[in-house]
Amino acid sequence: MPKALQPHPDRALPAGEAREVARRIHASTRSLPLLCLHGHVDAALFAADEAFGNPADLLVVPDHYVTRMLVSQGVSPDRLGLPRLDGTRTAEPREIWREFCSHWHLFLGTPSRYWLEHEFAEVLGLTVAPSAETADELYDEISSRLKEPEFRPRALLDRFGIEVISTTDAATDDLAQHAKIAADLPGRVIPTFRPDALVHLDRPGWSDLAGRLGELAGADTSSYEGYLEALRQRRQAFIAAGALATDHGHLSAAATPLEHGEAARIYASALRGEVSAADAAAFAGHMLFQMAAMSAEDGLVLQLHPGVLRDHDPAIHATYGPDQGHDIPVAAEFTRSLRPLLERFGHAEGFRMVLFTVDETVYSRELAPLAGVYPSLRLGAPWWFLDSPDGMRRFRELVTETAGFYNTSGFVDDTRAFLSIPARHDLARRIDAGYLAKLVVEHRLDEDDAFQVAQDLAYNLAATTYTRRS
Amino acid sequence: MPKALQPHPDRALPAGEAREVARRIHASTRSLPLLCLHGHVDAALFAADEAFGNPADLLVVPDHYVTRMLVSQGVSPDRLGLPRLDGTRTAEPREIWREFCSHWHLFLGTPSRYWLEHEFAEVLGLTVAPSAETADELYDEISSRLKEPEFRPRALLDRFGIEVISTTDAATDDLAQHAKIAADLPGRVIPTFRPDALVHLDRPGWSDLAGRLGELAGADTSSYEGYLEALRQRRQAFIAAGALATDHGHLSAAATPLEHGEAARIYASALRGEVSAADAAAFAGHMLFQMAAMSAEDGLVLQLHPGVLRDHDPAIHATYGPDQGHDIPVAAEFTRSLRPLLERFGHAEGFRMVLFTVDETVYSRELAPLAGVYPSLRLGAPWWFLDSPDGMRRFRELVTETAGFYNTSGFVDDTRAFLSIPARHDLARRIDAGYLAKLVVEHRLDEDDAFQVAQDLAYNLAATTYTRRS
Amino acid sequence: MPKALQPHPDRALPAGEAREVARRIHASTRSLPLLCLHGHVDAALFAADEAFGNPADLLVVPDHYVTRMLVSQGVSPDRLGLPRLDGTRTAEPREIWREFCSHWHLFLGTPSRYWLEHEFAEVLGLTVAPSAETADELYDEISSRLKEPEFRPRALLDRFGIEVISTTDAATDDLAQHAKIAADLPGRVIPTFRPDALVHLDRPGWSDLAGRLGELAGADTSSYEGYLEALRQRRQAFIAAGALATDHGHLSAAATPLEHGEAARIYASALRGEVSAADAAAFAGHMLFQMAAMSAEDGLVLQLHPGVLRDHDPAIHATYGPDQGHDIPVAAEFTRSLRPLLERFGHAEGFRMVLFTVDETVYSRELAPLAGVYPSLRLGAPWWFLDSPDGMRRFRELVTETAGFYNTSGFVDDTRAFLSIPARHDLARRIDAGYLAKLVVEHRLDEDDAFQVAQDLAYNLAATTYTRRS
Repeated sequence: MPKALQPHPDRALPAGEAREVARRIHASTRSLPLLCLHGHVDAALFAADEAFGNPADLLVVPDHYVTRMLVSQGVSPDRLGLPRLDGTRTAEPREIWREFCSHWHLFLGTPSRYWLEHEFAEVLGLTVAPSAETADELYDEISSRLKEPEFRPRALLDRFGIEVISTTDAATDDLAQHAKIAADLPGRVIPTFRPDALVHLDRPGWSDLAGRLGELAGADTSSYEGYLEALRQRRQAFIAAGALATDHGHLSAAATPLEHGEAARIYASALRGEVSAADAAAFAGHMLFQMAAMSAEDGLVLQLHPGVLRDHDPAIHATYGPDQGHDIPVAAEFTRSLRPLLERFGHAEGFRMVLFTVDETVYSRELAPLAGVYPSLRLGAPWWFLDSPDGMRRFRELVTETAGFYNTSGFVDDTRAFLSIPARHDLARRIDAGYLAKLVVEHRLDEDDAFQVAQDLAYNLAATTYTRRS
Repeated sequence: MPKALQPHPDRALPAGEAREVARRIHASTRSLPLLCLHGHVDAALFAADEAFGNPADLLVVPDHYVTRMLVSQGVSPDRLGLPRLDGTRTAEPREIWREFCSHWHLFLGTPSRYWLEHEFAEVLGLTVAPSAETADELYDEISSRLKEPEFRPRALLDRFGIEVISTTDAATDDLAQHAKIAADLPGRVIPTFRPDALVHLDRPGWSDLAGRLGELAGADTSSYEGYLEALRQRRQAFIAAGALATDHGHLSAAATPLEHGEAARIYASALRGEVSAADAAAFAGHMLFQMAAMSAEDGLVLQLHPGVLRDHDPAIHATYGPDQGHDIPVAAEFTRSLRPLLERFGHAEGFRMVLFTVDETVYSRELAPLAGVYPSLRLGAPWWFLDSPDGMRRFRELVTETAGFYNTSGFVDDTRAFLSIPARHDLARRIDAGYLAKLVVEHRLDEDDAFQVAQDLAYNLAATTYTRRS
Repeated sequence: MPKALQPHPDRALPAGEAREVARRIHASTRSLPLLCLHGHVDAALFAADEAFGNPADLLVVPDHYVTRMLVSQGVSPDRLGLPRLDGTRTAEPREIWREFCSHWHLFLGTPSRYWLEHEFAEVLGLTVAPSAETADELYDEISSRLKEPEFRPRALLDRFGIEVISTTDAATDDLAQHAKIAADLPGRVIPTFRPDALVHLDRPGWSDLAGRLGELAGADTSSYEGYLEALRQRRQAFIAAGALATDHGHLSAAATPLEHGEAARIYASALRGEVSAADAAAFAGHMLFQMAAMSAEDGLVLQLHPGVLRDHDPAIHATYGPDQGHDIPVAAEFTRSLRPLLERFGHAEGFRMVLFTVDETVYSRELAPLAGVYPSLRLGAPWWFLDSPDGMRRFRELVTETAGFYNTSGFVDDTRAFLSIPARHDLARRIDAGYLAKLVVEHRLDEDDAFQVAQDLAYNLAATTYTRRS
C-alpha cells in the first residue's frame, strides 16, 4: 500500500513545553501575506500566464536542489533531463519523474523534502507519497491539475497570498516582460537590477554585453565614464519599473575602490580583450564600491551574495552550462573586505545594504558585529544551503544576541521554484516561531514581545528593509 | 499601563526535564562570592567612592554594547552623548535616557537586555520596564537612588559580594589610585598589567609612552635593553600592588621571537619614528613571546585577547576616539601562531596563559585541542559578543568534550559597567547550570558531579587560574 | 564508600518527549554486528592472540585521549609511562594506573569517560568507579580478568560482534601478520593501505622506505616511474590480503597533479636528499591525485584525513616520538583544494573517496555541498576530537540538510584502543538515535523512516561505502 502524504500540522515546530507556544506564534503569522522581495522566478511566467508543463519540467529539471542530490547518488544529469548546451536532451519527462520518485528517500532530513511535501499536499492536493510504485499515478494526477486555470501563474500569485514578488534581471534586460505584467498587475511583480555580468570583465561575452548596455541606455560604453553613466541610466529604468533593489554575486566581498584612472585603464584593457584575472578581480571590487555609491544616490537597496565558487566542475559546466548545482561555497570574509565601503557609506542616510552568506562562520564573528553597529546594514535571511530548518535556527542563535532582531532583513525565498514559495515562507515562519517559543519558555523573552517580533520577522522587516530610501 | 519589570526566577534556565535540576544547581552557586579577575572598571571609582552621576552617564554613555545597538538603528552618536574628542557634547543626560528607553525593544534577545533588567530590578529596585512613556519616571527614580550612600561604589562591592575585583591598567599607570584603595581595602581591588600601548610601536604617541615608562621604572628606554628592563620593573610594581595577571590585546596571536639584534633594530627605528607596519607587527609578536618569558619568571598570568580589528570606522574613531563599539572581529588562528611560545613555555612550571577569542570557529578546532594537552593553558570565558546565553552554551558544548571542565578559566566579567557585574556572573552561572543539567538528564554526568563542577566553574577555577605561580 | 560504576541504560539519549522514540530506535540498532572499516588496532594483536598485559599498558599508556588530558593538568609524560625514544621508562604500571584513577574527574563531560565507563562496566565487569581509593582494587581486578581466555583478542572479536575489522598498515608492511590471521579467520581482519611515509619526501628516513618499497614490490624505485609501479604493486598485494581502502593523512587537502617531468624531477631530488619543503608539499598533493587515479583503476576506497599539524610540540616529539596527543588541527579547505581531483574523478564510476575533517567549519560550508553533488564522495564520520556526543550531533545537524543521510559513510571507530570499540559504536548509535528521534518528535521525519535510516547509519552505509568498486 502506498504511503500517505500527510504533512503534520506541527511539522518543524519544537517538541516539549515550547510546542504550545510555538503553535500560537505560528498561528499568528501563518496567514500573513508574502513579501517575496528577492527571488529568481522568471518574469516571463507571469507575462505569459500559461499553464505549466509536465511535472518533471516543473518540479525536477529546474530545481538544482533536487537534481544535485540525485546526481550525488549516481543518477546522470542526462537521465534527469538537464538540457545540454548542444541542445540535445534524451530523457522523457515521465522517465525523469520516475527517477525522482524512486529516489525519494534521499531527501529525508533535507529542506527539499519539506518544501516538496508541502507543494504536493497543500498546493497540488496529492495524497500519496512519491515512490517507484506511485510515480506514474502522481505524474498523471499532477499533469491534470496543471491544466486547470487555477494553476496558472497569476492565479497562484493570489492563492499564495503574494503581495509583491521580485524577479532578478540582468542589467541588460529590456524589462519588456515586466512592462507587460505591470499593465495588468501594477506593482505586483517587480524587477531587481543585477549587473554581475557587466562588472566581471573577464567573463566570455563581456564586451558584447557592454555594447548591449550602451544601446539600451543610450550611452557610449566604449569609455569607462560612459559605462558608469549607462549603469546609472539602467538603474533609473529599473526604478521606473518598480525595482527596489540590486543584487550582486561576487566571489569575495572585497569592495575597494580604485583610482578613477586605474579603473578606466582596466576597463579599456577589457574592451581590447586583454584584461588580466587580477585586474578583473580588482575591478569587480571597485564596482561593488561604485554600486554602493549609486545606491546611496538613487536609494536602491544593495544585496550582496558573496563566497561561492561557481561551476566547480568544468565538465558539467561545459556540457550543461551554469547553475547546475555545482557551485560550492568557500570561506567568506567581511570585516576587512567591506571596510572601505562601510567607511564611506556605512552611516550614509540613503544607503541600505543586505548581506548574505553561505559560510556560517561569519555569523557571530563578523556579520552580527557589523550589522549591530552600522546603520546601513541588514543581515539577509539564511541563504541557499542554509535556508533549512537547522540552518535558520542556527542563524537566529548566532546573530540575535549581537545584532538583535531588528538588524535582520526578514525572510527572502530566493528561489526559481515558484510552487515552493509558500512552503519556504511557511517553514521560515515555523522555525522563527520555534526559536521565539524557546526563548519564551526559557524566560528569555516575554510572550507578548514574541508575538510582535514574529510579525516583524514574517512581514514588517522585509517591508522596511526593501524600501527605497532616497 | 506601563509594563512591569519582573525578571523571572527561572530566566535563562532550560525548559523541560532539565529545569528542576538546573534550578537546584543554580541555587547552589548563586550566592557564592564573586571573583572578578578580569575587568575594566576604573580604579578611580573605588578610590574616590563618590556617588554615581545621572542614569545616562552611568548606564548608557559608557556601555558600548548599548550605544552600538542604538547607533545601528540610526540614532546618532551625538544624540547618545558620546563625548567627541574635541570636547563638545550636546545631548543632555535626560534626552539620552529617553532615546535609550524608547528603543528598548531593540535589545530583545540580547544579553544587554538581561543584564539591564537584572540591574534595574535587583540592583536599583525599579518595577516598570523602560519605554518612551516611562523614561522620565525611571530617570528620576534612578537619580534619587544613586544619591543614597548604599549606592556608592565601595558599598556596592560589599552588596554584590565581590571578593576581589581586578582593573586593567596601562603599564605606564602610576598605580596611585590603587595605592589609595589598598590603604582602606587591602587586596580587594587589584591592578592588571596591560602593556599594549608600549608594544605596538607604530601607534601614535608611542615614543612618549616609552619615555614615560622609563621615568616610572627608573630605566633608560632609549635602548631596547632598557625598555625590557623597564617593563620588568613595572611588572614588579604591579605585583607589589597585588596584580595577578597581565593582559594583551593583539590583532593576531602570533608570538614568534625575533633575534635580539633584530628586535633592537626595530626598536631603534621606532624611536626615530621610522618603523614600518611589517616591523611593528613582527615586534608585537616578539613582545608577546617576551611577555610569556617574563611571566614564566615572575608568575603573572598572561591573558591574550586577539583577533579584533580596532576602530573599523575611521570617521567614528576620528570624532569620538577608540572603544566606541566599532571594533570588529576577524578570523583567528592559534595553532601555528602560538607554536613558538608553547614550544618554549607550554610545559613551563611557572607559566599560565589564558586564551580568549571572539571567533568561535577555533573553540573545537584549535583552543580545546591546545588546552587539552598543554599544562600552561586555560581557556578564558566566552568574550565580548560571545558573553551571552547561547554564546556561553556553545562554548561549553564546543570545548568540554576535548578540554574537559578543568582546562577552562571560570567566568570573567570583563566589563566597564560596574552595575552589571552581578548580572553577568549570575547569567553565566545560570547557563552553566543549564548545561550541566542537560548533561545530567541525558545521563552524561551524575548529579553529584554536576554540583561539584558548578562550584568549580563559578568560583574555584577562577581562583586557581588566576594564581601567581612563582 | 566508593562510588558505584553504573552506566545508565539511557545514557546519551535525549531527555523529554524524544527519549522514548530514541530508546526504540537504539534498541533496533544496538545489537547489529560491528563493521570496523577504519581503525588502528595492531594486526599483531590478532596474529598472536595472547593475553593483554596490565591495565596501565592496555588502557592508559597507548590511549592518547587519556594521556593528553592528564598531561594538560600537569602529570608528566614520564609518570604516565610514555616510552621515551631512548628506551627508558621509569613509571611502574601500577603507579601509572594510580595517576589515572586519581584524576578521573578530569574526564567529566568527555567521550573518554563514556568509553571507559562502558569498557569498565560492560567489557570488564567492574562495579566501582576509579578514584585514588579504588585504584589498587581495580588494578588487581582487571589484571585477573585479562588472564582469562575470553579476554584474548580473538575471543573479544566474537564477543564484540565484530564482523570485519580493518587495520591501517604502512605501504611497506609485508602483511605477514595479516597472512597469519587470514589462515584462521579469513576475511575478518583486513589491512588498509597507508602510503603517507612514502609520499612525503622530506620526512627523515624516506629514501630507506623508498628502497624497502622497491624490494617488497620487486620494482626499481630509483626512478619515479618505478616508484609509481611499486605503489601499484603494493596496492595489489593489499587487495589480495583483503584490503578495501587506502588512507591518507596530509596537512592540506591539496590534490593538484604535476606534470610528469616535474614530478620525476622532484622525486630525483629527494633521492639525492635535496628536496625543498615547497617541492615536497607539491609532490604530496600530486601523489594524492595519483592515488585517486590508482583508486579509480583498482577500486580501493580513498580515505582522506587532512588538516592536522603533527607534533606541535617539538620537545615532546624529540623525547617520546609521534602520536602522543600533540597533534593539533588547523583550518581546513576542501572546495579549491580538491577541485582538480574532483574535476577528473568526481564522476568516475569506479572511484569512491571518503572525506574526514577535524575542522567543523567545513561541514556546512564545503563538505556537505561537495558530497551533495559529486557521486564519488562520502562524508566520513566525525573524526578524533569530534568523535563525541555533541560532536556527532553537530555533524548530523550541519551536513544532513544539504547532503542527506546517504552521502555519509556510516560510523568508523578509528581507534587503537581495541577494548573501546563496542563503546564507540554504541555511543554513535545512541547519538544517531537521539538525532533521529528529535526529527521524529518535531515531525520532520516519519518514525518508520527513522528506523530504516538508523539501520543504514549503523551498518548498511559502512558496508556500501567500503566496497571495492572495480
